[in-house]
Amino acid sequence: MMLYGGIEAGATKFVCMVGRGPDSIVAETTFPTAEPAETINRAIDFFRVSAGGALAALGVASFGPVDLSPNSPTYGYITTTPKPGWAWTNIVGSLSSALNVPVVFDTDVNGAAYGEYRWGAARGLSPTVYVTVGTGIGGGVISCRRPLHGLVHPEIGHMLIPHDRAADPFDGICPFHGDCLEGLASGPAIGRRWGQPAETLPPHHEAWSLEARYLGLAAVNLILCHSPLRVILGGGVMQQPGLIAMVREEVERLMAGYLQVPSVARELDRYIVPPALGGKAGVLGAIALAMDFSGQPPD
Amino acid sequence: MMLYGGIEAGATKFVCMVGRGPDSIVAETTFPTAEPAETINRAIDFFRVSAGGALAALGVASFGPVDLSPNSPTYGYITTTPKPGWAWTNIVGSLSSALNVPVVFDTDVNGAAYGEYRWGAARGLSPTVYVTVGTGIGGGVISCRRPLHGLVHPEIGHMLIPHDRAADPFDGICPFHGDCLEGLASGPAIGRRWGQPAETLPPHHEAWSLEARYLGLAAVNLILCHSPLRVILGGGVMQQPGLIAMVREEVERLMAGYLQVPSVARELDRYIVPPALGGKAGVLGAIALAMDFSGQPPD
Repeated sequence: MMLYGGIEAGATKFVCMVGRGPDSIVAETTFPTAEPAETINRAIDFFRVSAGGALAALGVASFGPVDLSPNSPTYGYITTTPKPGWAWTNIVGSLSSALNVPVVFDTDVNGAAYGEYRWGAARGLSPTVYVTVGTGIGGGVISCRRPLHGLVHPEIGHMLIPHDRAADPFDGICPFHGDCLEGLASGPAIGRRWGQPAETLPPHHEAWSLEARYLGLAAVNLILCHSPLRVILGGGVMQQPGLIAMVREEVERLMAGYLQVPSVARELDRYIVPPALGGKAGVLGAIALAMDFSGQPPD
Repeated sequence: MMLYGGIEAGATKFVCMVGRGPDSIVAETTFPTAEPAETINRAIDFFRVSAGGALAALGVASFGPVDLSPNSPTYGYITTTPKPGWAWTNIVGSLSSALNVPVVFDTDVNGAAYGEYRWGAARGLSPTVYVTVGTGIGGGVISCRRPLHGLVHPEIGHMLIPHDRAADPFDGICPFHGDCLEGLASGPAIGRRWGQPAETLPPHHEAWSLEARYLGLAAVNLILCHSPLRVILGGGVMQQPGLIAMVREEVERLMAGYLQVPSVARELDRYIVPPALGGKAGVLGAIALAMDFSGQPPD
């Protein structure tokens, strides 16, 4: 039987997997992201040893920025990343020529969104929006049963949301926009605002109601823009107990009865949910991309 | 040769057309939106007389709220509208049973977006975002080459954007949200804020730079959420000379160099554009929906 490979290429670690889904994982490995040639070769070795000639296709869900434009000369590259050594790395070209299989390429968050759509908390639900709140804020969107690409890909972390400076005088930390969503609500933004790491703030600290407010504003805008059938909120910051429930309350309050759809009005706990695949959403999404799209030209 | 029908069902007028596109319009009529039976019968008579047995399918782009869920018992209805007499009107059922043709149903703004995508300012460009700024603010989205549906459909007019109350103490007029996008930037909001109808404000009035700021914030969020290949800004308020250029400047300023894509960074005048089909985008979009989707079940 043919096997599929997936890589979640993160800026700190690579997660590689061979299999056909969460219930048929054949092999799995994780290693730190070192310099590009060494790291990519380590992935290549893993797939050669674990899948050999049975590898049908490979999916790569990568940190970015990445070039997803099929007609671009740098399609398949990690482009202008500040990560030392990785700018303009032809990750797709290196993998496909070494392994001689089709490679499906996407952003890390589109990969995780697709994993959750295929096997997780949004199974079969399109459109779906997946947001990760951690060191940064990123989002993937499934639309028409595939990851959304366009001019580039969604960049929802930089959405501009209401910021009441009387209630929260913090300027935000985004180097581009100051108080965009990521600038106000990422893990490092919480840490900077309150002078201690987010994970050390006690459960009843006002940091969390403010965080829920910003994430609620973002969720409302995403619901209004995409009309998703499910919203998934993941990432390190969302590990905070009770935070997702507070975000749901903010969404209900901010929506103010406007969208009278049952799943929004009365079933928010099934509409705005945590990821079901946990830390494996990205690499499983990469496998799903390989399974579902390796026979097609990139869109 | 088979003909296609289109209806732009507006709250004030119905525009009906028979043809196969902007260069092959066979017949066209416009009449005021009276009570439902009378209005729908007038449309039916128009299509019987103008197309007769040659009518292959009909598209309807309607004011809302509408029910687009194919499995809903009220699919094809105009639902909870405050317009007297029109709540829970089965517009699709009435038209399809009288004319005995497939009917493709969508929102007025998704229809206009599809018209512009098919024959207008966003020809062949998917994703595309279409925003109309007038009595209200609405938006249609083309994603994967068809109008975006999900939980319902995009409702971008109620997006929550930064509102600097020091610079603009106006509370906004949205009955649900106060100072959402529509509450701050629709035509009636401009009129209420400045104490005179928007169209009577002189070209250098500060109203227009404030309007450009709010529309620029909305455009940035739409670009970040959908990654569209084109953004179309239409509607009565956008008739104000120079306003679209001011919105482009705001987008450039607010984006702050973040999306280094040529069409955003240096070609904004080709990226954020007025509609090409003018007032006929909706009815032509309805015809295009009939041509392209009448053979398919509603999604």
